[in-house]
Amino acid sequence: ELEKKLEQLHPADIAFILEALPLPDRLTVWGLVKSTMEGDILLEVSDSVRETLLADMDREEILAAAGQLDTDELADLAPDLPQNVMSELIGSLEEEERAQLESALSYHDDQVGALMDFDMVTIRDDVTLEVVLRYLRRFNELPHHTDKLFVVDNDHRLKGVLPIKRLLVNDPDKQVAEIVAREVVFFQPDDDVGEAAQAFERYDLVSAPVVDSTHKVIGRLTVDMMVDVIREESEAEVLSLAGLKEEEDLFASVWKSAKNRWPWLAINIVTAVVVSRVIGSFEATTAQIVALAALAPIISGIGGNSGSQTATIIIRAMALGQVTAANTQRLVAKEFGIALLNGILWGTMLGLVALLIYGKLGLGLVMALSMMLNFQVAAAVGLFVPLGMHKLGRDPAFGSSVFLTFMTDGMGNLIFYGLATLLLL
Amino acid sequence: ELEKKLEQLHPADIAFILEALPLPDRLTVWGLVKSTMEGDILLEVSDSVRETLLADMDREEILAAAGQLDTDELADLAPDLPQNVMSELIGSLEEEERAQLESALSYHDDQVGALMDFDMVTIRDDVTLEVVLRYLRRFNELPHHTDKLFVVDNDHRLKGVLPIKRLLVNDPDKQVAEIVAREVVFFQPDDDVGEAAQAFERYDLVSAPVVDSTHKVIGRLTVDMMVDVIREESEAEVLSLAGLKEEEDLFASVWKSAKNRWPWLAINIVTAVVVSRVIGSFEATTAQIVALAALAPIISGIGGNSGSQTATIIIRAMALGQVTAANTQRLVAKEFGIALLNGILWGTMLGLVALLIYGKLGLGLVMALSMMLNFQVAAAVGLFVPLGMHKLGRDPAFGSSVFLTFMTDGMGNLIFYGLATLLLL
Ligand SMILES: [Mg+2]
Ligand SMILES: [Mg+2]
Ligand SMILES: [Mg+2]
Ligand SMILES: [Mg+2]
Ligand SMILES: [Mg+2]
Ligand SMILES: [Mg+2]
Ligand SMILES: [Mg+2]
Ligand SMILES: [Mg+2]
Ligand SMILES: [Mg+2]
Ligand SMILES: [Mg+2]
Ligand SMILES: [Mg+2]
Ligand SMILES: [Mg+2]
Ligand SMILES: [Mg+2]
Repeated sequence: ELEKKLEQLHPADIAFILEALPLPDRLTVWGLVKSTMEGDILLEVSDSVRETLLADMDREEILAAAGQLDTDELADLAPDLPQNVMSELIGSLEEEERAQLESALSYHDDQVGALMDFDMVTIRDDVTLEVVLRYLRRFNELPHHTDKLFVVDNDHRLKGVLPIKRLLVNDPDKQVAEIVAREVVFFQPDDDVGEAAQAFERYDLVSAPVVDSTHKVIGRLTVDMMVDVIREESEAEVLSLAGLKEEEDLFASVWKSAKNRWPWLAINIVTAVVVSRVIGSFEATTAQIVALAALAPIISGIGGNSGSQTATIIIRAMALGQVTAANTQRLVAKEFGIALLNGILWGTMLGLVALLIYGKLGLGLVMALSMMLNFQVAAAVGLFVPLGMHKLGRDPAFGSSVFLTFMTDGMGNLIFYGLATLLLL
Repeated sequence: ELEKKLEQLHPADIAFILEALPLPDRLTVWGLVKSTMEGDILLEVSDSVRETLLADMDREEILAAAGQLDTDELADLAPDLPQNVMSELIGSLEEEERAQLESALSYHDDQVGALMDFDMVTIRDDVTLEVVLRYLRRFNELPHHTDKLFVVDNDHRLKGVLPIKRLLVNDPDKQVAEIVAREVVFFQPDDDVGEAAQAFERYDLVSAPVVDSTHKVIGRLTVDMMVDVIREESEAEVLSLAGLKEEEDLFASVWKSAKNRWPWLAINIVTAVVVSRVIGSFEATTAQIVALAALAPIISGIGGNSGSQTATIIIRAMALGQVTAANTQRLVAKEFGIALLNGILWGTMLGLVALLIYGKLGLGLVMALSMMLNFQVAAAVGLFVPLGMHKLGRDPAFGSSVFLTFMTDGMGNLIFYGLATLLLL
């Protein structure tokens, strides 16, 4: 009966459900999805979740799913498909479609050519609206988001657009030429998609033609894709501010998630050690306390950054409605797991660095232990402050950054100087 | 001739230009704008820029501009208009429009009721498509973003929608009832706009009906507004991560911008002092060096946060294309100005705190001076790293956070311990 319920859902809803499920449950539900919907769902899920779904499908299943898609949709999926499946798919396409697919794949992700749709309605301007209306009735279905028809000359060059609104309110005896809009917002395939999205936003567009260098119409952009571009760019910006490269699958393994967070942490550790040497260069008095003063900022700084990565992931997931009562416990366990892994890894490394610099085993131990503990503090604050703020109906992003710095700096120093007092002084 | 050029521009383009201009130039251009466009431009500019434009207009000008707008647009502007202008405007409206305006104003900003459009086309389902086509021809113009007609019963209750796509491909002799879509995504006026935007995104909608509790159609949402909602929410998230409350007018005064950044800095200063006391509580050896170790994290921490505010503002402005060769110098001067103001303010305060805790005038001076200098370092890094990364074609957000922590921590400690060595030891 779950199967029947799934059939009635929109592919985008199923995609949302799949993203919010841990891997085993996700694959169970994926197995129940009707094969005719699989292609559309693969298009909707995030890259990291798509990988997990494709890994679960055999060659025939992937071919069947991809067979349901338009060329422009296939182009979106192509980078994630196994090479042999792709060659077989390309072989099965008709010549025009193959050319379209190859064109789409020849552009970079952030170029209009990679996102454009090849379905569109073009008309001439020397016919009456009556003729246009009769022409449209010969279609089984118009392409999605058709709010304007593209008016072209004999060489398929763009002359203007006929908004459907005008087609509907004007006398059918009028010529297209009389009501065509000559000033058109159009794009070229090597335009930047972010700039195209800004134009859609600014001029409130629903669709717009894409033309080649000879002004021939070769495709179009639609607002639904531009909305996805805007969303993806804003997500990338937030993640990037926390030093995270990619959107994480919420339920990826601890190992995989930890690796996503390493580049930033690794750079940060190098810079923190440099800072520590700056402080250490002022060795005016007792060496012991100067060593502590020099090492303490490493503990608090790295804790702060690790915590802000956790907080960013959780805040994003909450904004997308992916954090539920059912999966909170799992997410919490996962973040502490990542913190444990990172704590052992980077803690040991920094302990060795401290040992190398100061030649004191005790200091190395205090360093390693403090780092491990502060990673746990950072995970706790990064998790529970956004979750708590959200429960209180407050903005989780605002509160979290303040609290986070406070706790990782405060607890980091307390742990470090505390352990040092206990074990060294 | 500038006046003529402005006439040919889209209101959204003029809004963009106004936002990228310093105040005196902005008001000069604003004076040249045709009064029939003023209303649309006021709708497009950001809240902070709108304030500066309205402050420059007298009662008559505001009334004329507002008179050009639909009720739903007027509702957007209303919170920013002077009270007496609003009452006069309300008095001049017809009864239906007044009711619509009052309804729109009765909802909170983040509710569908505040954003909905009152223009829409409703039809019955017991007529043929031919009749519908003839009915549409009686309009001078259809409402913007009309991709579906709302099918209602005698009591104006929503029964379904007729997508324009279906109207165009089906035989005109068919009845509306034969091709109406009964499963409709609709909203209610107290729904959250963020969730409505997610539904638009997920189901690729262009427009959707809004119904009251008795299922009567009272308005509609359109994708152009939802795009604005998505953009605003993502901006709010990024700003909020840096502890900034509002989008800043890029050319607001130093004083006004500084105030926007104070709440976070003030909280951060309190927490940094608490952290400092944590370290200070381990007074095991020489008091002097422990005092330094306790105070140093304040300098580096607050520098980091101030720098991340500067970087966030610049990265946002670059993403929106508002940073040009012509205004870079001005922005740089402004950020250093804010840093100077904040450095004097918070530096003095923290110098006094250090003096109070340790009773040493020299220490207070070192503290105050270091804070002032590190605010300048933070401004420099927050400005030049994103600008430089952007010039190199790299992602400004990613590089900036890494460099920023490094420089504010490193330089902060160097300045502080350096001044301490020079002046105290
Ligand atoms: Mg993708
Ligand atoms: Mg399809
Ligand atoms: Mg594509
Ligand atoms: Mg298509
Ligand atoms: Mg817009
Ligand atoms: Mg608009
Ligand atoms: Mg606004
Ligand atoms: Mg208007
Ligand atoms: Mg409104
Ligand atoms: Mg309207
Ligand atoms: Mg979508
Ligand atoms: Mg879609
Ligand atoms: Mg920090």
